Amino acid sequence: MTALPSSAVAALLPALKFERDGLVAAVAQQHDTGEVLMLAWMSLEAVDQTLATGEVTYYSRSRQKLWRKGETSGQTQRLVELRVDCDGDAILLLVDQTGAACHTGTRSCFFRAVRGGKLERIAEAIADPKTLYGAEA
Amino acid sequence: MTALPSSAVAALLPALKFERDGLVAAVAQQHDTGEVLMLAWMSLEAVDQTLATGEVTYYSRSRQKLWRKGETSGQTQRLVELRVDCDGDAILLLVDQTGAACHTGTRSCFFRAVRGGKLERIAEAIADPKTLYGAEA
Repeated sequence: MTALPSSAVAALLPALKFERDGLVAAVAQQHDTGEVLMLAWMSLEAVDQTLATGEVTYYSRSRQKLWRKGETSGQTQRLVELRVDCDGDAILLLVDQTGAACHTGTRSCFFRAVRGGKLERIAEAIADPKTLYGAEA
Repeated sequence: MTALPSSAVAALLPALKFERDGLVAAVAQQHDTGEVLMLAWMSLEAVDQTLATGEVTYYSRSRQKLWRKGETSGQTQRLVELRVDCDGDAILLLVDQTGAACHTGTRSCFFRAVRGGKLERIAEAIADPKTLYGAEA
């Protein structure tokens, strides 16, 4: 896990600014529909593994370790394209999402919206978290 | 600027988790095309002003103050809908962007992509930053 970064990530390095916690914010967007699925965090190793394997890997701040999306749930994200923003502290991942991106079972984590001055649920679960993660979820 | 939050933001408050720096990550997406335009940061006041005025307002970490998008450049973002993610530490802003979202003059800040193992520019500027921000930009 401490191997030298792959060539693709080496080309990226000068453009990336990891914050003081060593992470950049990463937005995942379904490549064909444009739906924004989730926002998570990537370390250098997460970027490296994502580019090397084509399977999106994040860094879990709560568990403090790399987290290949879908490794438990099967709801993987295949990388289609990785983009970097102007100041290098945010990444846009165009992905092909299998099933539900959200741990709650909804397709997108952004399933609540402010409407009429209230926060409303605007999307239902498409998968049962208990099925995705087992009984402890 | 220290007024009590408006009713819409009050409804949002229980769902939002501002990090230890008092900010949440906010992704702006063009509401009709689905293009992801930028990622920036919002404080409680920024959320409040955005909901109260319908003009997207961020918190600038470098300038440490509220920043109404387009206040200098004219490249404003009209809020269409504000969404919150599952754990409340990220916001998705569906917006109507005037002109260029990026301070470099490109429509989106995500104008670079990893292709063929290299970081490539994939979009050109649609506005001249010198015109948007004056000669000091």
